[in-house]
Amino acid sequence: MKKIMMLLALTAVLITTVNLAFAAETTGQELNKKIVREFYDLAINKKDFEAASKYLGPRYIQHNQRAADGAEGLKDFIRFLRDKFPDAHSEIKRVFADDDYVILHVHAVREPGTRGTAVVDIFRLQNNKIVEHWDVHEDILEKAANPNGMF
Amino acid sequence: MKKIMMLLALTAVLITTVNLAFAAETTGQELNKKIVREFYDLAINKKDFEAASKYLGPRYIQHNQRAADGAEGLKDFIRFLRDKFPDAHSEIKRVFADDDYVILHVHAVREPGTRGTAVVDIFRLQNNKIVEHWDVHEDILEKAANPNGMF
Repeated sequence: MKKIMMLLALTAVLITTVNLAFAAETTGQELNKKIVREFYDLAINKKDFEAASKYLGPRYIQHNQRAADGAEGLKDFIRFLRDKFPDAHSEIKRVFADDDYVILHVHAVREPGTRGTAVVDIFRLQNNKIVEHWDVHEDILEKAANPNGMF
Repeated sequence: MKKIMMLLALTAVLITTVNLAFAAETTGQELNKKIVREFYDLAINKKDFEAASKYLGPRYIQHNQRAADGAEGLKDFIRFLRDKFPDAHSEIKRVFADDDYVILHVHAVREPGTRGTAVVDIFRLQNNKIVEHWDVHEDILEKAANPNGMF
């Protein structure tokens, strides 16, 4: 009977360990998605650098070719948005996560009523903080070659 | 002794099941990455529609605003590349997968020696076949606001 109890306990520990490893991977990526969504809304829609900057790591490596490097570059970009396009709004259409990366597929509209731009943003996270950013932008044409839309 | 053997067998089955679920998720996404890499190289670099089309599902929903819908649209696009930019080459810089999606971060150069374009492609797969595609393109500028490059 003792042996059976031991074996049962061992089984429970093993299954829990495997499940926890699985859950940790999923939870980590789900948490990263949540962090990036919140950061994006604060930075791009609320245009609140102070609030957004709390999501940044000790370094923020910028690959957007029109933005200066680091947190200061983000600050400048948010100030530019506030000044020139106070009503700019970005709608996140899809969120993906893989390893330490979160990828957003976004419809960005700088002036309400315009067609706007399709954007993909890629963020790299470290210890639940955003440390690196890449993006690609493409203006949406008036007429497309197919009826499916860019999203 | 019989009880212990039964319990051992049950343990093995349970652990195997949990591990298989974990492995299937990972293998599925790794396989999808491999499929998309092969498809991309055949379509964009080798410009071989016949070979690439074997990777497509019964429908290929196109969101690239300059390409016609379906496999026929891809055929036309590959023909255009062959005719106008026979040396066009795309280098995959990063590959991500989440759920049924594979995301590529790509440096596309249509004419050797030019700066080229940063691209993100998003593919959706069903039963290991590519059934939907979105993308975003941005020309690489001569001078960027930071020293980090677009990749």
